[in-house]
Amino acid sequence: MVNSSDEDGQIMDGALEEALHERQAAVLHYLDSSPALQQIGHGHLDQAIRSYLKRPGKKLRPAVLLLSAGAVGGDESAALPAAAGIELFHTWTLVHDDLIDNDALRRGGPSVHEEIRRVVLETGGYSSEEAEDYGRNIAILAGDVQHGWAVRLFAECAGRNGVSADVALTLIKIMESRVINNLAWGESLDIEYARRPLGEVTLEDMLLMLQLKTGNLYEFAAQAGAMLGLNSPDDGLAVVKGLAEFGSLCGTAFQLQDDILGIIGDEQTIGKPVGNDIREGKRTPIVYFAWQNADRLEKAKLASVLGNGQATQAEIAEAREMLVELGGVEEASKLAGQWLERGLRCLEVLPPTAQRELLGSLARYMIARSV
Amino acid sequence: MVNSSDEDGQIMDGALEEALHERQAAVLHYLDSSPALQQIGHGHLDQAIRSYLKRPGKKLRPAVLLLSAGAVGGDESAALPAAAGIELFHTWTLVHDDLIDNDALRRGGPSVHEEIRRVVLETGGYSSEEAEDYGRNIAILAGDVQHGWAVRLFAECAGRNGVSADVALTLIKIMESRVINNLAWGESLDIEYARRPLGEVTLEDMLLMLQLKTGNLYEFAAQAGAMLGLNSPDDGLAVVKGLAEFGSLCGTAFQLQDDILGIIGDEQTIGKPVGNDIREGKRTPIVYFAWQNADRLEKAKLASVLGNGQATQAEIAEAREMLVELGGVEEASKLAGQWLERGLRCLEVLPPTAQRELLGSLARYMIARSV
Repeated sequence: MVNSSDEDGQIMDGALEEALHERQAAVLHYLDSSPALQQIGHGHLDQAIRSYLKRPGKKLRPAVLLLSAGAVGGDESAALPAAAGIELFHTWTLVHDDLIDNDALRRGGPSVHEEIRRVVLETGGYSSEEAEDYGRNIAILAGDVQHGWAVRLFAECAGRNGVSADVALTLIKIMESRVINNLAWGESLDIEYARRPLGEVTLEDMLLMLQLKTGNLYEFAAQAGAMLGLNSPDDGLAVVKGLAEFGSLCGTAFQLQDDILGIIGDEQTIGKPVGNDIREGKRTPIVYFAWQNADRLEKAKLASVLGNGQATQAEIAEAREMLVELGGVEEASKLAGQWLERGLRCLEVLPPTAQRELLGSLARYMIARSV
Repeated sequence: MVNSSDEDGQIMDGALEEALHERQAAVLHYLDSSPALQQIGHGHLDQAIRSYLKRPGKKLRPAVLLLSAGAVGGDESAALPAAAGIELFHTWTLVHDDLIDNDALRRGGPSVHEEIRRVVLETGGYSSEEAEDYGRNIAILAGDVQHGWAVRLFAECAGRNGVSADVALTLIKIMESRVINNLAWGESLDIEYARRPLGEVTLEDMLLMLQLKTGNLYEFAAQAGAMLGLNSPDDGLAVVKGLAEFGSLCGTAFQLQDDILGIIGDEQTIGKPVGNDIREGKRTPIVYFAWQNADRLEKAKLASVLGNGQATQAEIAEAREMLVELGGVEEASKLAGQWLERGLRCLEVLPPTAQRELLGSLARYMIARSV
């Protein structure tokens, strides 16, 4: 659950907080009562599938989807299975991404593969290598099952409050081709860029990657909400396109802020070690801007730490400081603000409603948040 | 492509060969012209996604789906996208299974993760550990994209030759919940059983695992074909249930034969090293029956080789011989014959058609094949 008051004094708008809380509860309730959960036959797999869903999470994508359905004059409750579906879609990509990035932490607990590794190590009978393999294997399968569950949840929209099978099918087609292709493309660019010499990845390259990795799913959340709210399979309608563009821009701004928190955030609050992105050598706009402003010595220092798995805590701390002092964080933050403004303008195509207001507040929160 | 005459003299029925060949060509053509293929943004990912599809394969699941559509009096061509979809669904599960089993070979070539590992090692700039990680990461993503593509292909059935959106959506729901849950369950049982002491896994346990891992997808292929052929979302109709049961039983018999070929097959013909199952310690019915017939010394020998990654070629060869001489292969083969017979009886619910005949020949081939 998002706190209304963070340590650094950011206040979430009370109406937004209430709106998010309400929708979060509805989504969780829908997921908890899903018959899909009863059909998992294996203990560790079941634990792996439920793991991230039980942890605190902001559930921003479902909120964007539901508010978009309402903002076009639709019935939010008709879109509820899709809201649960987009959360699950996001969840399976996290499970597989954590494998790919070899991250041991997520949302304040162990990542799925790490959680299962620990469980079987404690049970005994597994060597440390076997336990690691087993954890990774169960995480692959858990993500696959969650992926299927997400599709099934979208399919459950059909017939609910009059939503047509055609609309549900159109959304599934978009999710399972455009959205997934873009995500995998973004993820593979992320892997590839981390190996390229610093300074060779352009800002454009990075922004494309952020859009593919994060903007893309927010774009689909808003688009799906609008199409469900209108009960129309037409993704070319002005309000649908406006909301999709809003989602894409604000989602990308959200990722910019995420990258910033990965550098200057509080470990306790964000639930994973600050400095991970530095160790992995992620090519974020923060790094881009800092690099532009760095002199030869500073560049050499950055190049020796970013992506160096053997870097010490002190070196990581020094690199963090450099990314801040060279203006990387400030300029990335400014960029996030610009994308947010462009996103907010897209909302003007909508009639004035409470949901339009809430989408605006939500987008502003997305880049002001410290968690 | 399946040969009409194998070395050991098994002859595939000429009418069946022609029928399979025709349907295989139609499925490949549909896949090759899919717009989904044009939307993959990244080179290695693209290579990984296409890899298995380009290799020779029997395409038995699409054939079962198409013939089932015809056997209920339906139009096979209306079911073509789903036939392509089931092949792709099978393909993504192979890509992820090869990761899980750490198999370096598939269909006469390197497995996907191994193929990509080699590509980047040759390109240079990757340590052997980095290349291995990269290959595995691209394989995770490739399977995920193929999974999405499979769903999209099923969605493409809607509106084709009058197939209703409701039928397509119902099939997607079944595939993305029951089918995928069962597959993951079967796969995790497979992992778990390989660690249990020999003799502790019952024949029932193993047959359940075979049904979940393989029978399950054949069951769905036949069920989906029938529902598309009838253009009905009702999976409770007698012909739909009969075909589903046929698929389940014959698919399980197919897996029994697969396990047999993994012990006594020809490496060249089956395209992967014989003896892998022994090294991995797979708990197959062959092992079960051999164990039942083994004396104390033979049990000790089997226990020391099965699942022993360090076993020598000579030890593997000795274990293979024991599995044969202790009657494991023969009894597993007899069991496959019994499941086949039960499967064939399920076809009696259908009117006599060319497709019903072909399904019968196909099922017989599935357990007589040497490839």
